[in-house]
Amino acid sequence: MKWKVAILGATGAVGQRFIQLLHNHPWFEIEVLAASEKSAGKPYGKACTWILECEMPREIADMPVVNIDVKSVEKAGNIDFVFSALPSDVAGPLEDEFAKTYPVFSKASVHRLEEDVPLLIPEVNPDHLELVKIQRERRGWGGFISTDPNCSTIQLAITLKPLIQFGLKKVVVSTMQALSGAGFPGVPSLSIIDNVLPYIPGEEEKIEQETLKILGEFNGDKISPAKIQVSASCNRVDVKDGHLECVFVELEKKPSVEDVKKAFKTFKGEPQRLNLPSAPKNPIVVREEADRPQPRLDREEGNGMSVVVGRIREDPVLTIKYVCLGHNTIRGAAGAGLLSAELAAKRGYL
Amino acid sequence: MKWKVAILGATGAVGQRFIQLLHNHPWFEIEVLAASEKSAGKPYGKACTWILECEMPREIADMPVVNIDVKSVEKAGNIDFVFSALPSDVAGPLEDEFAKTYPVFSKASVHRLEEDVPLLIPEVNPDHLELVKIQRERRGWGGFISTDPNCSTIQLAITLKPLIQFGLKKVVVSTMQALSGAGFPGVPSLSIIDNVLPYIPGEEEKIEQETLKILGEFNGDKISPAKIQVSASCNRVDVKDGHLECVFVELEKKPSVEDVKKAFKTFKGEPQRLNLPSAPKNPIVVREEADRPQPRLDREEGNGMSVVVGRIREDPVLTIKYVCLGHNTIRGAAGAGLLSAELAAKRGYL
Amino acid sequence: MKWKVAILGATGAVGQRFIQLLHNHPWFEIEVLAASEKSAGKPYGKACTWILECEMPREIADMPVVNIDVKSVEKAGNIDFVFSALPSDVAGPLEDEFAKTYPVFSKASVHRLEEDVPLLIPEVNPDHLELVKIQRERRGWGGFISTDPNCSTIQLAITLKPLIQFGLKKVVVSTMQALSGAGFPGVPSLSIIDNVLPYIPGEEEKIEQETLKILGEFNGDKISPAKIQVSASCNRVDVKDGHLECVFVELEKKPSVEDVKKAFKTFKGEPQRLNLPSAPKNPIVVREEADRPQPRLDREEGNGMSVVVGRIREDPVLTIKYVCLGHNTIRGAAGAGLLSAELAAKRGYL
Amino acid sequence: MKWKVAILGATGAVGQRFIQLLHNHPWFEIEVLAASEKSAGKPYGKACTWILECEMPREIADMPVVNIDVKSVEKAGNIDFVFSALPSDVAGPLEDEFAKTYPVFSKASVHRLEEDVPLLIPEVNPDHLELVKIQRERRGWGGFISTDPNCSTIQLAITLKPLIQFGLKKVVVSTMQALSGAGFPGVPSLSIIDNVLPYIPGEEEKIEQETLKILGEFNGDKISPAKIQVSASCNRVDVKDGHLECVFVELEKKPSVEDVKKAFKTFKGEPQRLNLPSAPKNPIVVREEADRPQPRLDREEGNGMSVVVGRIREDPVLTIKYVCLGHNTIRGAAGAGLLSAELAAKRGYL
Repeated sequence: MKWKVAILGATGAVGQRFIQLLHNHPWFEIEVLAASEKSAGKPYGKACTWILECEMPREIADMPVVNIDVKSVEKAGNIDFVFSALPSDVAGPLEDEFAKTYPVFSKASVHRLEEDVPLLIPEVNPDHLELVKIQRERRGWGGFISTDPNCSTIQLAITLKPLIQFGLKKVVVSTMQALSGAGFPGVPSLSIIDNVLPYIPGEEEKIEQETLKILGEFNGDKISPAKIQVSASCNRVDVKDGHLECVFVELEKKPSVEDVKKAFKTFKGEPQRLNLPSAPKNPIVVREEADRPQPRLDREEGNGMSVVVGRIREDPVLTIKYVCLGHNTIRGAAGAGLLSAELAAKRGYL
Repeated sequence: MKWKVAILGATGAVGQRFIQLLHNHPWFEIEVLAASEKSAGKPYGKACTWILECEMPREIADMPVVNIDVKSVEKAGNIDFVFSALPSDVAGPLEDEFAKTYPVFSKASVHRLEEDVPLLIPEVNPDHLELVKIQRERRGWGGFISTDPNCSTIQLAITLKPLIQFGLKKVVVSTMQALSGAGFPGVPSLSIIDNVLPYIPGEEEKIEQETLKILGEFNGDKISPAKIQVSASCNRVDVKDGHLECVFVELEKKPSVEDVKKAFKTFKGEPQRLNLPSAPKNPIVVREEADRPQPRLDREEGNGMSVVVGRIREDPVLTIKYVCLGHNTIRGAAGAGLLSAELAAKRGYL
Repeated sequence: MKWKVAILGATGAVGQRFIQLLHNHPWFEIEVLAASEKSAGKPYGKACTWILECEMPREIADMPVVNIDVKSVEKAGNIDFVFSALPSDVAGPLEDEFAKTYPVFSKASVHRLEEDVPLLIPEVNPDHLELVKIQRERRGWGGFISTDPNCSTIQLAITLKPLIQFGLKKVVVSTMQALSGAGFPGVPSLSIIDNVLPYIPGEEEKIEQETLKILGEFNGDKISPAKIQVSASCNRVDVKDGHLECVFVELEKKPSVEDVKKAFKTFKGEPQRLNLPSAPKNPIVVREEADRPQPRLDREEGNGMSVVVGRIREDPVLTIKYVCLGHNTIRGAAGAGLLSAELAAKRGYL
Repeated sequence: MKWKVAILGATGAVGQRFIQLLHNHPWFEIEVLAASEKSAGKPYGKACTWILECEMPREIADMPVVNIDVKSVEKAGNIDFVFSALPSDVAGPLEDEFAKTYPVFSKASVHRLEEDVPLLIPEVNPDHLELVKIQRERRGWGGFISTDPNCSTIQLAITLKPLIQFGLKKVVVSTMQALSGAGFPGVPSLSIIDNVLPYIPGEEEKIEQETLKILGEFNGDKISPAKIQVSASCNRVDVKDGHLECVFVELEKKPSVEDVKKAFKTFKGEPQRLNLPSAPKNPIVVREEADRPQPRLDREEGNGMSVVVGRIREDPVLTIKYVCLGHNTIRGAAGAGLLSAELAAKRGYL
């Protein structure tokens, strides 16, 4: 018996990844596909401009898309919980409505910084999931909302976690983000050919704020933000998938490059210990070559769930610098949602 | 009467830019084109794979290419000075040989950090040109060598110069560099399509070391490096021309964003005061839009000689962050050489 | 005294090219900028996402955009004629309305195949302009509509014109069309990165039908379509500007490659004879290199108004094959409109 | 017991594909990796710039590369036959030397048009393999040479085979070919960014000549070329893998679009009947969508061994036109070699 899920925003870029990753998932199965009015009523194969290289699963093509409201979804099937890939501007009240009854795992940014909402990366802060008990109580909900961080933040935070032991103080990060991070149709080709866009609205603030909450301490009642400073500069480049980040960190204990490399290589999290279905064997994979990670060559590492780190070296200004890469629509979006739901399932929250 | 110049390495990417920029130059004219044995003896139009969008000047196409040695060059014409666009692995002894008789303005990296060689950006450290007097004396040369910094360093240093008044202490920079920076054939298309290369051999060291010399003080005898720290992370992106850099700086006096913007906007250098032919009206152009500078839209600013700065904002870790862009084969290479030679001409060094 | 023009659809990709090309035009000046409701009322600088590399002319940035209806346009200024860069789905009735009073030079496809409407390429069928007399009479209009062909068709037809002398019978053409042909935002970057789109809605039919009308004969009353057959296969490639076409033609008189080359090189049209301001010196420029024309290197030939032809060779199936290139938003769009209006001006139709 | 193979030219782009496709092959295993002097003596992992997205198989990384001569290869292992991915300029005498003892399956062009050498596509002309009997006898060799056609030709010929029943007369084809077709480093990125190259040396002649031989009839003694005419125009586009071709054919019997579609869909060849390990279930896959096939979305069809056809429609000049796509380094190169060797194995030629 598998848990039955509804995907909200099923026709978009992240919705499509959810469908791909849930195909043959051992614990979960797709019961309802929901999207906006424009798509509702059509079979999924007609409602959606499928943009992935893999074929759309045949059984999905014929499933009807229903409107994204609780009634329509409930009428379409009996669900156990919800993945939300809704755009942030509509996610707020819709997710609230679902959370009254169902667990909601959301990719939207709208609820991320609310005090009683987990901003979850299962390898980094699995204990934050407990916040949903407080949330349920405080809001009187049968379900709850758990959120995934911004795609650039997830991969950064995963690499920062093993650095905390060295006294992490300051983080400067410059990103080169993939086109798929802007959804579909997203970035016009005329804007990006022979070009870089040095600005992604809201992205820098998300990295700078979310990281503090993710790495913060949960004392059983609330989260105290991490006492670190983060600065980001975000860019869009002409790459399909895979965000690349140049990271510079100040570490109080001045570890050597080898210390840091070892910390990355040996890092394991709760998903690895619990052997969750979507957990990569190594949350962080270290490459030794001078010119790696590269988006096209490394984004599929660990089925897109590993963060690949390379070029770990001493930093003349802070302490250590390195480059990291994550698959933005897998580790940074749909895969993140799955892993969060798997953790919740294993811990009895579903 | 114009000064007559030889271009060493005339068939390469930077050599071609020299030819383009010297076409109809008011002070200088091309007298000799020199390149490696492979090209010597052929007319330029046959020897060169012309990669610029503009047409090769007709009179240049028919000029013979001669071998890059002093004798061959002298046999081909009476020259007053030399531009060197030689690859760094062959530039060393060849430039030395020419410098015994002629002023040499070099783009190669090999001599840049030598104590008695100027590493010149006319807007930033015009007084460093005086080093050539010491050089001539010490080496017993009739000519001299003056070098231009690395392309990424030039545009960075130009933006750092007006920040010195605010107590510049630390610089962190992450670059997104254009394909033309690697010359021709340079980066294979299979390496860069749908990709970013997070490593450019030697580039980070150049930025970190050269900046200290450029911003250093010349006391009439030698240069004391600037007391700042610089850290760089360098990337190659799928852009034809124009290096984009995300810069984070620590400034002791904590100026406001407006202070910094004003400093950039009002910055003028010696080339502007002397009204040198290749000097852009504004060495730094500030864009106010949220998403500028962009390589394709801004690289031709000031005929490729202005550095375009945007996104000036407070930095949560250091003091200020901003984005800057320069045309790497004009301001970062051939144009830099021209401006240096123009300064030298005006000051009587030719 | 210059003719005063209104641009309908001034904020789009073609509208922007009109503005660029009309800047400092010797005969015409921009009097009114009109666009859809969304833009109306704003200054042009705010209403428009400027996508050209050149700067928006300063005086244009401050001009107000008015709604695209005759009243609003007339209220905004006294105009002599109109350029329409309207999308085809709205162009129909709007252009009719303007044509009751004003000459309209339209880039839209909607009126192109109407019997009394010229489908004009000034080098190819200047006499077709006379159709507007019949049009005015029949429709009782004070103004008229003259249309420009589809962008891919224009450059093809220009190269076919000098082949008519050889008994042109059949044309097979396969296109590789630039992104700007789809307007802005147009093609999503995720659709075209590492890809080719082998389909452009409606494009093949336009090439196959319009060519027959353009090359048809006007007997003073109506146009008899050319007795040729045309087949097209159209593709979108990841190129900013410049449509490249592989053309295979059957010619009854079996000319040699040299005959054809000479016909291309010596071809001149009415705009060249009349010395119209936007007329390129050579409508067709022949390149002899094995690997030309190339979009990035050749699209600016003749200020974007020349068609560049190369690789003229014998064809094992038909008679001759060659490759041609034209700038799709200049020769294929805004520049075409200008040249048509200049011809009309010179011939006394304005 | 598996057949043991040597790969000549193992470090190049096609050599790497051979390694990928032979990994876990049920019949064949890699025994020797051979390459030029530059690589010989090094472990494969050091000798090769691996450009595929998949990881290099671990056991291959440690294998030594030997020089490409018979002695060195024989010293390195006992082999049953040879795959040659050698560049055509060195393939000639080297392959001859190996063929004295071993069957050689060659991707090089040099022997393709020799009278007693099969130019084999197992789905199209499996009987041509018998030529090797004549070849062995005539040349007195223990082994033989069988060649694979040019990558663009293979996919074209596969689609032409089922059209022969309709009286195939004329073929016009315009290609848009991927970067990997030029090998590594191959096309410089500066040549292809924002560009198309309308010329690939030798490619058009190969398509025009090889197709006649492939579709020719073997009468037990020699091959009579097919009585058809073929014209090609070849272009390089900024796509990693997957050649796209616009094809126009004249068919005497004037079949309908449906007839042709059915012929494509039901086409099976000898590899399908023999169930060869590398045979795709369908040599031709027909897509019904208006905008398919697309290189990025369709190149992996049938593990890269199917040719994907779409846009089948009536042609105003010839009879039918369509678009086809094949993976150039799988179906067009290494996969072609494998399938040929599998056919030879099954038929007792190894």
